[in-house]
Amino acid sequence: VRISELSERSGVSPASIKYYAREGLLPAGERTGYNQTDYTPAHLERLRLIRSLIDVGGLSVAATAAVLSAIDAPDLPLGEVLGVAQNALPQPITPPSAASVQRVVDLAAEHGWPAHTEHNPGVRIVASVLDGWAAVGREDLASTLPAYARAADVIAEADLDAVAHVVGDARAGAAQTVVVGTVLGDQLLAGLRRIAQQHAALKRYGTPPEGTTP
Amino acid sequence: VRISELSERSGVSPASIKYYAREGLLPAGERTGYNQTDYTPAHLERLRLIRSLIDVGGLSVAATAAVLSAIDAPDLPLGEVLGVAQNALPQPITPPSAASVQRVVDLAAEHGWPAHTEHNPGVRIVASVLDGWAAVGREDLASTLPAYARAADVIAEADLDAVAHVVGDARAGAAQTVVVGTVLGDQLLAGLRRIAQQHAALKRYGTPPEGTTP
Repeated sequence: VRISELSERSGVSPASIKYYAREGLLPAGERTGYNQTDYTPAHLERLRLIRSLIDVGGLSVAATAAVLSAIDAPDLPLGEVLGVAQNALPQPITPPSAASVQRVVDLAAEHGWPAHTEHNPGVRIVASVLDGWAAVGREDLASTLPAYARAADVIAEADLDAVAHVVGDARAGAAQTVVVGTVLGDQLLAGLRRIAQQHAALKRYGTPPEGTTP
Repeated sequence: VRISELSERSGVSPASIKYYAREGLLPAGERTGYNQTDYTPAHLERLRLIRSLIDVGGLSVAATAAVLSAIDAPDLPLGEVLGVAQNALPQPITPPSAASVQRVVDLAAEHGWPAHTEHNPGVRIVASVLDGWAAVGREDLASTLPAYARAADVIAEADLDAVAHVVGDARAGAAQTVVVGTVLGDQLLAGLRRIAQQHAALKRYGTPPEGTTP
């Protein structure tokens, strides 16, 4: 199909399609004549994946390029694909303090999580949150850490179950599951947390958060 | 103190300090002479809160202004502060399909969450994730929903416990806890999830995600 039809079917503007092709996110179409390029159903599929990662997952174009490369590399072990997907989440601009990083590594050990966590991108994110709490004098929020860690365990098991289900399939499907599951999973959790908060507030105080009701 | 010292102590550039003051995130300093403005410790505290919400929490300047207004409004009920904080998370540009929104409302009812969830900002986020899965043909990822919902319950209870602990305190402290807890909690969870995934992969397959280890 021509770029106009690809644009219509995917909801992505021709300018963005060309931009994604230039940045290597989308394979180039086949030139079939003067000022005319042909695109296939594979292009449409790829465009939908790109839009999900950017628009729903909140990834930058550069991070999207990185995770797509990991999906496309047929020999990359799934564990490494997970590492790339984990790293796609934007990190705070200011690096966390060394003390907070050490505290997260200690917390992870106490919680029964493995050694060598210090290279996990999650450690820097959690350490930045601890720094953020400290900056505003709310170290008391650390009381929520055990519950958050328990919840993270539940989610991680579900994530690995989802990947295990497609391992029988082509490796490309498993790699795509790892990327889509990791990137969209953060949003899924943020969304469900808001509904659960409303429910918990209603149960406890008898009134829902007022900004969220008609 | 002068703006140069405020900048040094907060790590925020004078240009950004002036920008935050213009946008109403930071109260103006007191003019004490020609081209000289005096700032107080309250300004430093507020700047640290702004940086935590923007840099660690990933909020936009506009969303930060909204949650700060909610903290500052002394008569706003805490439930409404939670609503504002819940709404600060960026939503996908494309609205979710009506079918997915309905599906999330149904899922919430099945899970025992309240009616009237359709106005909760979490519903639109979750519905967008369902749309994202469908767009790339990965509806099978819906198998993770029950575990994610259980995890969200654990977190919501911890969130409300954290607020309950400071309710005896000044209302401003409780409002700040609601905002900081809600905004930074998403990042906290995303970070812990990555460490938990590494642990779960190690336990199951004997190898950690390779991108995350030395």
